[in-house]
Amino acid sequence: MQTYPILSARFARLGALGDAAGLLHWDRQTLMPAGAADMRAEQLAQLAVIGHEILTAPETGDLIARSLDDVASLGPWERANLREMRRAYLHAAAVPADLVAASSKASSQSGMIWREARARADFAMLAPALGETLRLQREVGAAKGSALGLDPYDALLDGYDPGMRRATIDPVFAHLRAALPDLIAAVQARQAREPAPLPLTGPFPVEAQKAIGERLMRAVGFDFERGRLDVSLHPFCGGATDDVRITTRYDAADATGALMGVLHETGHALYEQGLPAAWYHQPVGTARGMTLHESQSLLVEMQACRSGEFCAYLAPILAEAFGGEGPAWSAQNLYRCYTRVAPGFIRVDADEVTYPAHILLRYELETAMIAGDLALADLPGAFNDGLRDLLGLTVPDDRLGCLQDIHWPSGSFGYFPTYTLGAMAAAQLFRAARDQRPGLPSDLTRGDFTALREWLREAVHARGSLLETDDLLVAATGKPLGAEDFMAHLRLRYLGEG
Amino acid sequence: MQTYPILSARFARLGALGDAAGLLHWDRQTLMPAGAADMRAEQLAQLAVIGHEILTAPETGDLIARSLDDVASLGPWERANLREMRRAYLHAAAVPADLVAASSKASSQSGMIWREARARADFAMLAPALGETLRLQREVGAAKGSALGLDPYDALLDGYDPGMRRATIDPVFAHLRAALPDLIAAVQARQAREPAPLPLTGPFPVEAQKAIGERLMRAVGFDFERGRLDVSLHPFCGGATDDVRITTRYDAADATGALMGVLHETGHALYEQGLPAAWYHQPVGTARGMTLHESQSLLVEMQACRSGEFCAYLAPILAEAFGGEGPAWSAQNLYRCYTRVAPGFIRVDADEVTYPAHILLRYELETAMIAGDLALADLPGAFNDGLRDLLGLTVPDDRLGCLQDIHWPSGSFGYFPTYTLGAMAAAQLFRAARDQRPGLPSDLTRGDFTALREWLREAVHARGSLLETDDLLVAATGKPLGAEDFMAHLRLRYLGEG
Repeated sequence: MQTYPILSARFARLGALGDAAGLLHWDRQTLMPAGAADMRAEQLAQLAVIGHEILTAPETGDLIARSLDDVASLGPWERANLREMRRAYLHAAAVPADLVAASSKASSQSGMIWREARARADFAMLAPALGETLRLQREVGAAKGSALGLDPYDALLDGYDPGMRRATIDPVFAHLRAALPDLIAAVQARQAREPAPLPLTGPFPVEAQKAIGERLMRAVGFDFERGRLDVSLHPFCGGATDDVRITTRYDAADATGALMGVLHETGHALYEQGLPAAWYHQPVGTARGMTLHESQSLLVEMQACRSGEFCAYLAPILAEAFGGEGPAWSAQNLYRCYTRVAPGFIRVDADEVTYPAHILLRYELETAMIAGDLALADLPGAFNDGLRDLLGLTVPDDRLGCLQDIHWPSGSFGYFPTYTLGAMAAAQLFRAARDQRPGLPSDLTRGDFTALREWLREAVHARGSLLETDDLLVAATGKPLGAEDFMAHLRLRYLGEG
Repeated sequence: MQTYPILSARFARLGALGDAAGLLHWDRQTLMPAGAADMRAEQLAQLAVIGHEILTAPETGDLIARSLDDVASLGPWERANLREMRRAYLHAAAVPADLVAASSKASSQSGMIWREARARADFAMLAPALGETLRLQREVGAAKGSALGLDPYDALLDGYDPGMRRATIDPVFAHLRAALPDLIAAVQARQAREPAPLPLTGPFPVEAQKAIGERLMRAVGFDFERGRLDVSLHPFCGGATDDVRITTRYDAADATGALMGVLHETGHALYEQGLPAAWYHQPVGTARGMTLHESQSLLVEMQACRSGEFCAYLAPILAEAFGGEGPAWSAQNLYRCYTRVAPGFIRVDADEVTYPAHILLRYELETAMIAGDLALADLPGAFNDGLRDLLGLTVPDDRLGCLQDIHWPSGSFGYFPTYTLGAMAAAQLFRAARDQRPGLPSDLTRGDFTALREWLREAVHARGSLLETDDLLVAATGKPLGAEDFMAHLRLRYLGEG
């Protein structure tokens, strides 16, 4: 009996369930009336349990084992699909049902307490619940690690970014750590010698911002026949297969923030919309992992759209839409606005030069927490020490310090490094694209993303999860993930070196 | 071992799955990008199959049987819940999986062909696919009938309106059939003697219509913390538990149509929002059936909001919103507009006096089709003959005849009668409410629905599916479902008799 088709049907069902959950999540953030929150949580929990039961059913493991016995009869996509099915199965089956339930409940509780604790800058308020979440995530990491043959942190990391390991991260992060403080100092010194960016003065009506956002989404290549742009408090890219929904939020006093947010999410969306349709609802048809996903958003936002070339295209569009006149609306000034470097407390507000410092710190702290080498009581102090060492900032309270992110309270340990790994992959991919498509920078001065998009489609999007991350990068750029192209990008853009 | 709690958890999962599907359906009609249609169909199909598998699993039947053995230990709500669980199980388990799949596929196909065939007024184009859908619905009816001890039509009817039987419908429809032609003629003669309604002249900006709609929804009692109003091509009431979503469509050239549509759907929504929270996601916590559901929309729209009392409240609101002046904007003229009787071809556009004629005809035809007494080739002629007999109209083509409704092509046989049964139940309930709350008509002149809403909450909404439809009507109105109050309502409103 052929077991692979049965397995494939089983995973197609999981894919459809994931789509349904994706749409309910999207709706919760955008449209759902407040009073529906409890029932929505119940709907999502039931969908998650149904999916978990299908994935961890003994027959699933049995079908995978039997399909692996017959792997020689399968083509490369089917083989990769089987590899990803096995990974998903091992991750899910490794964690006993009561630990799944306990960690999910604990994360949900500490996530809720976090909102209040952050508002009050009160770490002590969060500590007990966060301690429970951490304790259970360490158990989850140990259970997954035992099934996958990994240490607990690598096992958690593998859940967000398949194949990523501390052994890969440590040397490249060491490279960043050594180079970053001097680079930040040099960039700040250089910017101090130059004229400060002129502020754009508004107001910037939301409808006009939305129209520009949609125009740029179309230019980048977002397919509105298979997706939407809406509004939510926290921007994200979600939705479902053939129905990719990105969100933003508008500030009528700021013309530029929502726009870059939209372009960032459009990068994520382009990846999802470019996945191979022949493998929809199969593991091999999904995006490869968080490093590559973040590379696509940062490639569009940071590499392409904060470039001088794109600012030359964008500046007159903004001036026309908002009736702007004078030097503040020049391409050069817009570029200065979009490339301003200023160390700050808040990670999500950071520029691309200081952003990695926030990640280096969090990576160091979360690996220590998962290893049991950092007690929770010592977290605020260690966080504040780190921000002083890396960015020279004195944290005034924990709201601007270790309470600023939802990741740890919501149980996400092992996610943070993918932001900066993504920035590195973005620089590496963009450099390869420019090398192979020399007309690309001048295309951007006309808002023409065709060549870039087609290159990314072939090199990244259409491959789904066929290749492991490093194999994909080698195929696309000639080398595995490294910090060199990222550092070269920063030195060129911010110091004029290169 | 207590089996009831296990069963209850199983049905809670089905309830959450139903909610998820309800939201995906709503999204499909309101927001979904066109290119997502295939994947959405796949998501909904997978959710339906998962639900069907849970419901028809042998353990479900076993748990029900064992819980019934122990029924003496259960309270009245649990007992009613078990009765409804058993009904749902018998309906689902009666139909073999291959028949479920075949009839679902056939209905989906004939539903799609119908859109084209209706546009072309080409019955021959639809006939083969409709024939297959009918053949399979007859099989479904026979299979369910055999499990439920009912004839096939009653078995199909029971799926939409639990407990409803032809033996109940036939005498009340015979009553209508005997009285309706004379009544329609008398109403038309009376209206011919009176001045024709003056047309309201627009435009009627969509934003203003929406604001009035929301204001009236609030007045009726719609809870916007647990629901929404949006736009779709075909208005409906959907969504999920604690998240009831109604839709409408606006016509800037017509001030009154969307408004009555909103009030109609608000009646449905009030029922859903008033269901007993203690029984959410359990069968006993759901609305009783389509007759009572339609009674709630028609009670709000036809009984309450097309009354002279409500028109006195509404007329100045419309005049102010649209800057209307003169006699066209008087309460009296608005009432004339909202109670105009004119036989027409299209059921969904019919007034409340001629509407039952459309239903009598469809009921007669679909009972004959399910019984095998009417060949499909004879349907157009029989439909046209019926419309001539009942309303004196000569159908020019099948687009205005037997092709106008999606029900049969989409496999819904046994649904039509609930519209008119609902109109009768609405009249009966409204009369009881007025008898028990004498201030009710004058409340409506102030847009005050408090007393009516509280009466409906207690008499209908909060009972969920605790009682069978007729038992609920006896408890609320002192008598089972009948045509008397409906006919009395029509004679009073349209002939001044009473």
